[in-house]
Amino acid sequence: MEFDRVKDSSLREKVKDALTTVRDFFGDGVSVAFSGMAGTAVPKEIPKAIAEISKERGEGLDIRALLVAGTTTNSFEQCMSTAHVKSRYLIAGGGEMRERVNHGVIEFVDYWLSEYSQLVRRGVIPRGGLDIAVIEATYIDEKGNITPSLSLDCVPAMVQAAKKVIVEVNIRKPILNGVHDVYAPQPRTPIPIRDVGERVGAPYLRIPKSKIASIVISDSEEEHAAAYQPPTKLEEKIAQNIIEFLEQSGEAGENIVLQAGVGPLASQLIDQLPQKHVSVWTEVAPVKWALATEKIENMSTACLYTLKGEEKFRDEFYTRFNQLSNNIVIRPYEITNSLEVISRLQVICVQQAIEVDLYGNANVSHIDGKIHNGVGGSGDFTRASYITIVALPSTASAGKFSRIVPITLHTDVTEHDVDVVVTEQGWADLRGLSPKSRARLIIERCSHPDFVDELRKYMNTVAKLDAHAPVSLQAYETFLQNVKH
Amino acid sequence: MEFDRVKDSSLREKVKDALTTVRDFFGDGVSVAFSGMAGTAVPKEIPKAIAEISKERGEGLDIRALLVAGTTTNSFEQCMSTAHVKSRYLIAGGGEMRERVNHGVIEFVDYWLSEYSQLVRRGVIPRGGLDIAVIEATYIDEKGNITPSLSLDCVPAMVQAAKKVIVEVNIRKPILNGVHDVYAPQPRTPIPIRDVGERVGAPYLRIPKSKIASIVISDSEEEHAAAYQPPTKLEEKIAQNIIEFLEQSGEAGENIVLQAGVGPLASQLIDQLPQKHVSVWTEVAPVKWALATEKIENMSTACLYTLKGEEKFRDEFYTRFNQLSNNIVIRPYEITNSLEVISRLQVICVQQAIEVDLYGNANVSHIDGKIHNGVGGSGDFTRASYITIVALPSTASAGKFSRIVPITLHTDVTEHDVDVVVTEQGWADLRGLSPKSRARLIIERCSHPDFVDELRKYMNTVAKLDAHAPVSLQAYETFLQNVKH
Repeated sequence: MEFDRVKDSSLREKVKDALTTVRDFFGDGVSVAFSGMAGTAVPKEIPKAIAEISKERGEGLDIRALLVAGTTTNSFEQCMSTAHVKSRYLIAGGGEMRERVNHGVIEFVDYWLSEYSQLVRRGVIPRGGLDIAVIEATYIDEKGNITPSLSLDCVPAMVQAAKKVIVEVNIRKPILNGVHDVYAPQPRTPIPIRDVGERVGAPYLRIPKSKIASIVISDSEEEHAAAYQPPTKLEEKIAQNIIEFLEQSGEAGENIVLQAGVGPLASQLIDQLPQKHVSVWTEVAPVKWALATEKIENMSTACLYTLKGEEKFRDEFYTRFNQLSNNIVIRPYEITNSLEVISRLQVICVQQAIEVDLYGNANVSHIDGKIHNGVGGSGDFTRASYITIVALPSTASAGKFSRIVPITLHTDVTEHDVDVVVTEQGWADLRGLSPKSRARLIIERCSHPDFVDELRKYMNTVAKLDAHAPVSLQAYETFLQNVKH
Repeated sequence: MEFDRVKDSSLREKVKDALTTVRDFFGDGVSVAFSGMAGTAVPKEIPKAIAEISKERGEGLDIRALLVAGTTTNSFEQCMSTAHVKSRYLIAGGGEMRERVNHGVIEFVDYWLSEYSQLVRRGVIPRGGLDIAVIEATYIDEKGNITPSLSLDCVPAMVQAAKKVIVEVNIRKPILNGVHDVYAPQPRTPIPIRDVGERVGAPYLRIPKSKIASIVISDSEEEHAAAYQPPTKLEEKIAQNIIEFLEQSGEAGENIVLQAGVGPLASQLIDQLPQKHVSVWTEVAPVKWALATEKIENMSTACLYTLKGEEKFRDEFYTRFNQLSNNIVIRPYEITNSLEVISRLQVICVQQAIEVDLYGNANVSHIDGKIHNGVGGSGDFTRASYITIVALPSTASAGKFSRIVPITLHTDVTEHDVDVVVTEQGWADLRGLSPKSRARLIIERCSHPDFVDELRKYMNTVAKLDAHAPVSLQAYETFLQNVKH
């Protein structure tokens, strides 16, 4: 059974169980990178074995650096939290791992996805080098070519940087041949992509056999993405306002290239778009979109993920894979998030945020200094896109806090990159407006009625300061005082 | 005499004096864009005529939107301040113009240079369209091809967007044929540049003759760049620290591509670099570098500017133009600042800043909410570069203020894009470090001894907050109180 998926006979001797693999290769102080994004293609057996061995030893395995490629699954985070992780790169994780990051027990570093790939490739991170990359695959052919599952995320960079590679071949999934395009950017060479659907690389991964330390067969089911919730009325309204902006501003052509955000808002936006044909160029897309061939002409993504309750769409995608995979290209995010390609394709991007200030600066990663998830590809898309739309609900915690704030004390995306702000209240086209004019428009069109008065008061106070982009800590503290419940 | 420089006989009837030109084409409510960057190639006669007519009328000409391409000259700003300018794009200017921007009399909007070009091309800014582009040139050949002077800045985008173009042919300068490369990015098409010196476009501008409204002959001398001062010991030390970082981190290869910053620091850095051969890919370069052929292998820039006191270098460049122009390409900044090309060439960039916070966020444009110059191309280079070095003196106002601050209340470049911070005190390599580790390193290696204790106190206070990137307004205010002189 297991050799049906490992056709290269020279690699069969490397098939081992996960416990043996971890015992053989995970010495104390190891640095390890895992594939997977939005819960998709996150290795399943190695994390379980790490947890089991940690339990057996009575103390956690000592991991110098843990690299993930994106948001993971609850199981992954639970397993990895049994280990003593010293430093972690990208996405703080959930539960205990995130708490340790905020406590400062884990040294955590976040990067834009495109930058991350490059720093991993160049060996700049992790300091001291990468020992092991663990990646999920669905098939290894006669020549040793490896077919990944539904994510290519940071895989090529991790594989190149790692001294050893462990491949988890997941036999619960079908063999997913033909949907991938593996291309690595070369210095001083244009990336030759001119169209969302264009393939320019290989349909599989090639890894030097000497680098492959172990092949672990997995029969585990894919978990849904831990980071996203199902859509609500709020996302429906925000999506409607995004569409209204596109139409009224004249930017809603028939052939737009869209990065539609992630999670529930992304689902709503594609559902409601009146255009018959759109192209999607993004870092993560719900597998549901792979079925929406009447709406999505073609799609390029680093990952196809499954929202909770949407497993049936994934099953249908698997069943109709040969037909549906024609319109979809899964690429590593050094390509999907490439500044070069995003600029060239004139992408309209939707960036979600935790809060946005009156001039348009957005915080996408921190709440009161505590990391939430991470910045993801926000700096890639917002910087290089044709139009950047920052979309968010106008309030948080059941209306207790305004997400439109006088000042963001943590800024990930600056006002210079934000063209439009959208909430469920409305949209504000900020292009060509000075900071103070932006502020007036955001307050009047996007903020929640419960906070409009206090935001106006703040702005009236600082507007007297005789400055181009005035800020006042005192006025900000007055605002905080007045909106307290 | 004047027709020596306008060889196309069909264009000779368009040669007019500046006063007539302004009377004919500058109706009230006009929108106008001027070429020029770092004081170079800023039109001279039209601004003077605008000032003269404003004086004559007893009230200022009414200008709906004034677009400049970069920092200008004192004369330009003085002339334009005679007009009633409603809105201004890019670089707040000096003197009275800047004051009006901060007072809010002029609606001022700033963009990264690469973004600006694109928004002008697409007609997004200025709202209501661009009526006139005024550009400086040195020659028009028999076929009407136009040779610019030593800057291409935003010229192709402005010319494309404008309904009418006014060409100032400057006969005080030599004919500068052969140093330019005019190429416009096309949607869905790679920019084919693979090397700093590669030419991919035309050596001159082509403008539809029907668009040319007037040709004004100018015999005015070029002014030096208003924005920059000559170098001091401080810049010398900062440059030494940048070089020390490059060498100790192993990033100082023989073939590095450098964006060396602007003004006095840039001069110092190139002077002191031990490498025999470097390539320079930048938006503005001092004309002095054009003579440094033993050090600079080749150079690509949107503009060659002249620092005060360095006019002799420009004269030498003019004299040896045919030989020296072989190693230099002047491109529009939609190319020099293209995210695509900067990434591809793996540029090491030096970004100057007004202040930087303990996590690495940089403010490059505002002091207490008041605009200083503008963001320029900071977001282009810092985002796309291979390594981003933020360089600044550790203090301002003769040591009164620390430029290393607990919090930047205006952020243009976020921590995610800042790899290294350098002051005259030392350098901090922040790559792969968490926010709190970054803060410790910046305090210990880069801050001024007069402020180290208070910065440490701030950091010790917020470090107790149990957050990944803690901030505290209260601790910040205590810091401000304690460092007051």
